[in-house]
Parts: sequence; structure tokens; C-alpha cells
Amino acid sequence: MAVRFGSQRQERVSVTGTEQRVLDSGPWLAGRTPSVTQEEVRRHNLGVLLRLLHVHGATARAELTAVTGLNRSTVKALTTELAEVGLVRESAPVGRGGAGRPSILVEPRSEQVWALAVDIGVEHISAARIGLGGVVLERTARRQPRGDTEVPAVLDRLRRLAEPLLAGRADPVGIGVAVPGMVGGRDDLVRFAPNMGWIDVPLSRLLSSALGGLPVSVGNEGDLGVMAEHLRGVAADAADVIYLTGEVGLGSGIIIGGRPLTGAGGYAGEVGHMSVNPAGGRLCTCGRRGCWETEVGADAVLLAAGIPAGSPPADVLRALAGADRAHRAAARRVGRWLGVGVANLVNLFNPEVVVFGGLTRLLFPVLEPYVRAEVATALTAPRDQVRLELPGLGADSSLVGAAELAFAPLLGDPLGART
Amino acid sequence: MAVRFGSQRQERVSVTGTEQRVLDSGPWLAGRTPSVTQEEVRRHNLGVLLRLLHVHGATARAELTAVTGLNRSTVKALTTELAEVGLVRESAPVGRGGAGRPSILVEPRSEQVWALAVDIGVEHISAARIGLGGVVLERTARRQPRGDTEVPAVLDRLRRLAEPLLAGRADPVGIGVAVPGMVGGRDDLVRFAPNMGWIDVPLSRLLSSALGGLPVSVGNEGDLGVMAEHLRGVAADAADVIYLTGEVGLGSGIIIGGRPLTGAGGYAGEVGHMSVNPAGGRLCTCGRRGCWETEVGADAVLLAAGIPAGSPPADVLRALAGADRAHRAAARRVGRWLGVGVANLVNLFNPEVVVFGGLTRLLFPVLEPYVRAEVATALTAPRDQVRLELPGLGADSSLVGAAELAFAPLLGDPLGART
Repeated sequence: MAVRFGSQRQERVSVTGTEQRVLDSGPWLAGRTPSVTQEEVRRHNLGVLLRLLHVHGATARAELTAVTGLNRSTVKALTTELAEVGLVRESAPVGRGGAGRPSILVEPRSEQVWALAVDIGVEHISAARIGLGGVVLERTARRQPRGDTEVPAVLDRLRRLAEPLLAGRADPVGIGVAVPGMVGGRDDLVRFAPNMGWIDVPLSRLLSSALGGLPVSVGNEGDLGVMAEHLRGVAADAADVIYLTGEVGLGSGIIIGGRPLTGAGGYAGEVGHMSVNPAGGRLCTCGRRGCWETEVGADAVLLAAGIPAGSPPADVLRALAGADRAHRAAARRVGRWLGVGVANLVNLFNPEVVVFGGLTRLLFPVLEPYVRAEVATALTAPRDQVRLELPGLGADSSLVGAAELAFAPLLGDPLGART
Repeated sequence: MAVRFGSQRQERVSVTGTEQRVLDSGPWLAGRTPSVTQEEVRRHNLGVLLRLLHVHGATARAELTAVTGLNRSTVKALTTELAEVGLVRESAPVGRGGAGRPSILVEPRSEQVWALAVDIGVEHISAARIGLGGVVLERTARRQPRGDTEVPAVLDRLRRLAEPLLAGRADPVGIGVAVPGMVGGRDDLVRFAPNMGWIDVPLSRLLSSALGGLPVSVGNEGDLGVMAEHLRGVAADAADVIYLTGEVGLGSGIIIGGRPLTGAGGYAGEVGHMSVNPAGGRLCTCGRRGCWETEVGADAVLLAAGIPAGSPPADVLRALAGADRAHRAAARRVGRWLGVGVANLVNLFNPEVVVFGGLTRLLFPVLEPYVRAEVATALTAPRDQVRLELPGLGADSSLVGAAELAFAPLLGDPLGART
């Protein structure tokens, strides 16, 4: 994945006008150092500065100088260039008291430079215009009938949702899409999205055709959710993060030591298919029995609460929070299973934060005591280090993460994408 | 952990006689580039070369030149220096036909430069002299009565096992110890080793006192086992590896993207305490119910096979492999649970290899069909990418990994540790 994450903050950069060499202290050696031209260094540094502004928002030039270790004149030349191509705006800050000359403020032009972000769920589709800097400028969503997720129908819905956002303004830098399934291989193929009924769907290509040829990148909703929470949300300072997601099923995005957990082929993090009840559980859509998502997914919640399938989430939550004896038992049951899985993840990953996104964002506040009681049974050392949190970005973690996918090429080479 | 792993092979090094700068292309910036002196570069490169020889064994100077990208004269100066301090031996290769002048062969002095490696299990203790280059020079082991694992008794046993290996020769570079428990914090404290009955044992300090003040490093047996298999064993080419271990319980060492999975505090990888049967399983030593190790640990195997506790492993395996109906059922049961957990790990981590070490090294060959039948129920994409393997280093993965701990300071700074 092209997008880099927050905990790489400790990495260092040195940029001078002279010849540059990239050195690594790795004990394993292969090949020689590539030589780097001055032009490449300049473009690289433009990207570094733009990414800094994208993540931190408006920043004084003096601070950019301090943080990057570049010369003042170099920073000035670079930000001027970013301003000239319309990516940032430079202005004098107002009302900064204290000693010294106030520094010019540099801010991303969020209104002009934007991405179209799309979050495809099993029961909803959301789309938003998200500006450089991660600002949600405009957001739209619609519910999607469960089971009505054939590719042409979803594409049609998406087109109708996106067109008003695209009409009458400059094109976005790209389109980023979050999906509840495994994404991999060439062309961001959606390999398997069981709750959508999708196998090997070339969504990127199809959506690009449907939306006038704009570039489309597709990612897993969990991977994108954890990226957004790690970049701008409740896990901004954490190197080891598990973000739970899913609407009907249960997925995740996981960051390990500041890097996304991908596994050998990009398919890691399928927490919903960790079997926690293989002896007594129900059959899962994946073919196994007692998967975590069969115990805490939407259907399990409805079943436990004795509520008709298809009831809106608000009704389900009201029931789980209710005083009725059967509903209390349902809450205890679902909360306990949610906690069993989280305790497993705590023992396996020793994370700093578990973020309850997707359906669990609604469930956790209602079931918290039961969840915490189970998590308390995890091994002492990792249990003492974990925080259980709601997403800092509310329901929009995956949507904001999808925008990051679309911004990645621009941040990698600000001039290449603009000229 | 100071020891670096094999899949960092793609990292590059450039070493010239001129000023050096360490550059990274990280988008997150903090601080400035440290300046590096020529002397630091030389010592760094000595370590790089020595590590190369440690991992790959005897290597021609011409190959070292090709692999590192250093000048021929620089390589010669460095290997000469390593030879002068007694770490390597240089000699003309014999019988190399073909074109060109044969190159001088450089090899680690495994007989002279060695580490004392110790593997503390619940039912055994092993110790070995392991030479630079990973050569097992001499190995000794004894069984330990189950339950007789109080710290003073274990220390005494260890001292008696180690003293003959230490007597009458030059000191080892250090002592590395593998333990079946969580290791963390200052002084390699053994935080929790449930099957030993240990909590917060300062093993490193105690063992150093018992063995004449030699430096002692302690690591988790799983972490060390996976490191050794990744460096020299069956997972040498894999970036995503799960190594199962444990004699009575079930632990692991996990490598993700070429880096050890540590988690926030170094406690990650406790696969044995992933609950797979919380509704119907037995109580675990950790206090939870239905942990994976209660279903496939040594006690579960004995129980399933109807064999008296404390029976030697050979009897257990003979029973599980037998034609007797009850034993066939036991094999099916244990094999199935082993497979359930492995399938969970496949869905969670999408690993390239799962290595069956520890007790599972004995179980897997007997139970393989049942294990594979369960692993076949994992999600298609990650399942198709995983290999199930026995350890390349046999029973010695953790022991060889423990030696790496002891070699780490020498490899980090070959002169610092020798002068």
C-alpha cells in the first residue's frame, strides 16, 4: 500500500543541496545504492512537506523548518512551489502574540484539492468529498436493501450517489473505495466479499468506467479504517492497533509496529473467521462453524435478542439495552462473545488499542460491561496494556481511509500528479 | 531485540571512504540526520560483514565484494581486521576450477568463537556450545520432572549442565537462554511462565551470578525458535511465519513482514491462550476456559488418548498412531483441535509458513490428515498461500535462536566486544 502510517514518525530525513545517498544499516545486503539526482530529491521533499501538511493541517513555515531539518530557504522554495501549483495557500498568521516575527502559515487547499471517497457496505453506501488535509467537505449516504448487492445494482447506486458530488466542479485527484472484502492482486480485484456475494470483482475498472475514467483505488474497509484512525483518529499515537469493522460480518484492520498487517498476500486480519465456537456454534458463510462473526455479527445479535431479521439497528440496540429479561440475556450473550474474541486478539497481538468500528461501534457502548469482563480474563501483561476505544472518526473511519488511497499518488509526487 | 532477521535482505548499504549520511524516505519527520564518523562507518561495516559470514558461512571475498557493493580493497581491509581479532579465518580455496583467479575464502572461526545456548523447557533442559556461524559444537540435555521447576532447582540443574561445557576453554561471547514464558522489561525479566510456575523471575541476573558473571540474555522460546527457523531453517525465504512451540502448553513466535511480532510490550504471540472452546472447554492455567492449549497441549493429548499423566512422549505418539478405536478417536480429536487453531491463525495472519515446533513437532506427523482437513476450511485465499512444515532445525530451533541472542552484541560491534 502506498500510504504510509503515523508511527514512522521516528524516521529521519536529511535534505541538502548536495549529492544524496540512501543508506540503510540492514545487516542483509543486496545490490548497490541507487544514485539519486537533485531533481528527485526536490520532488521527494515536496511530497514529504505536502504529506506533513495533509496530516497536520495548517502549519507555520518555521515549524516545517524545525520538523524537517531543512534550511529555511529550502522550505520557502518548496512551499512556494506547492502554492504555485495550487496545492497549498500561504498567509500571514493573525493574532500570534509573544516574541519573534510571526511565521508564514502554510495550509492545504482543502476546498480545491479533493478526493472522492466511497464506502460500500452490505447495507449502506456512503460517498464524500474529502479535501486535502482530511476535511470532509460534503457527505451523502443511502441504505441498501440486504441481499440486493449484485455488482450492476451497486454500481448503479454508486454512480447516482457520486454524480452530484462530481458535477459542476474540478475533478477530484482520484477516487478511493472501501469494500467489506478481501482486495488483492492486479487492479485491486475484490477477491472475496462473502456478505456481498462477490468473487473476483474488478471493481476498480468497473467504477472507473462508470465515472468517466477517473482513477479508482480499492481497499479493504478494515485496512482503510485502521489507517484513518492511526493517522487522524483515536489511535494516532499507537504503533499496535486493531480496528474492528463490519456491518453484517466482522472484519478488521490491524497495524503492527506501525505497519499494516497484510500477510503473505494481503489477506490477513480476517478476525470474523477466527472460530471461537467450532463445537457448538452455527455454520458461517465461509463454511466453518462457530466463527466469531456468527456469534457477534448482525444476525447473531438479532437472533439473540429475538428480533425479526432486517430490523433497523436502532431497534436492536434499544432491545439490547432494555430491562426485559430475555433482552438482558441476549446482551450478556452477545457481549460475552464479543469479549471472548477481543481477549483472544489481546493475547495474540498485545495491541495498545482495540477500536470498535462498524457494527461494534454501536454494540460496544451498550455491551461494554460484558465485553470488559471477558477482556479481563486475557493474560495480565497484555491486558494491562490495552485500551478499548470507539473510533475517533465516528462512522467515517473507512471513508476517510478511502480518501487516503486516492491522495496517495499526489502525496508521493505532488508535481507528477499536477502537471 | 537486537538480532535482525533474514528478510531484511532487500536493504542496501553503501560504504565509501567519504562522508556518510543516513537518509530515510519516511514521510514522518522528526529531528535531524545524525552525523556519522568514518570510524563508526568502519565498525558498522565490520558488523555487516561478520553477520553475513555468520548467516551464510564460509564465503569468498569476491562474493562479499559483490554482495556488499564495497570496494575490493575495503573488503580486504575489513576481513583482515576481523581475522586479526580472531573472529574469522582467511584461506585460499582448493579445487575451484573455471576461469579467473580463485578468491580468498573467509570463514567464521566457529570452534573458537562460541556462545552458550540454553533451552529451558517444562520437562527438559538443553544446553549447547554453538559456534559463530550457527554450528552446534556440543549439545547436552536432561529431562526435568514435571512440577519440579522451582527457580533454585532449575538454576542448580542448569549450572551442572553448563559447567562441563564451560570448563577448560576460552569463555563464550555470552549466554543465551530460551524460556517458555513472557519475557520483558528491564533485565529480561521472565514476567509469566505459567507451566513453570514462574512470575517475575530475574533469570538473567540469577544465571549470570551462577555462571561466573558471564553476560546472559533471555528470550521467549517461541520468539527465538521463529528467529532461528527464519534465519537458518525451513522459513528462510518467508517474510510471514508462525512457529508453534511448547512442551506442555502451546506458544508461538511470529514474524510479520520480516519483523518479529512483539506487540506493545513484547507479549504478543500467546496463541495457546486463544480460546477456541470457551463454551465447552476445560479450565486453563491462565484462568480462561477452552484455550487452544487445553485442547491440544500435552495434558489434552494424554486425556484424549486415555494414557496416564506423565507417560513419555513416545508412548503417547504410539497410541495416537495406533489402530485401536479409542486411540483413533483421540487422534481425530486432538488433530482436529490442532487444525482449528491453525486455521484461525491462517485467517488472522495469512502466513507463508506455519512451522510445527515443540510438542506439535511430534504430533503433526501423526495427526497430519486431521490437521490438514481443518486447515482446508480456512478462507480460500490465505489457505492457498500457506505451507505447513516441520522445523528445519529439528528440536533445536529455540536453542539455536538462544545462541543468536548471545551473538547479537558481537555482531553489532565486532571490535567493541573483543577489545
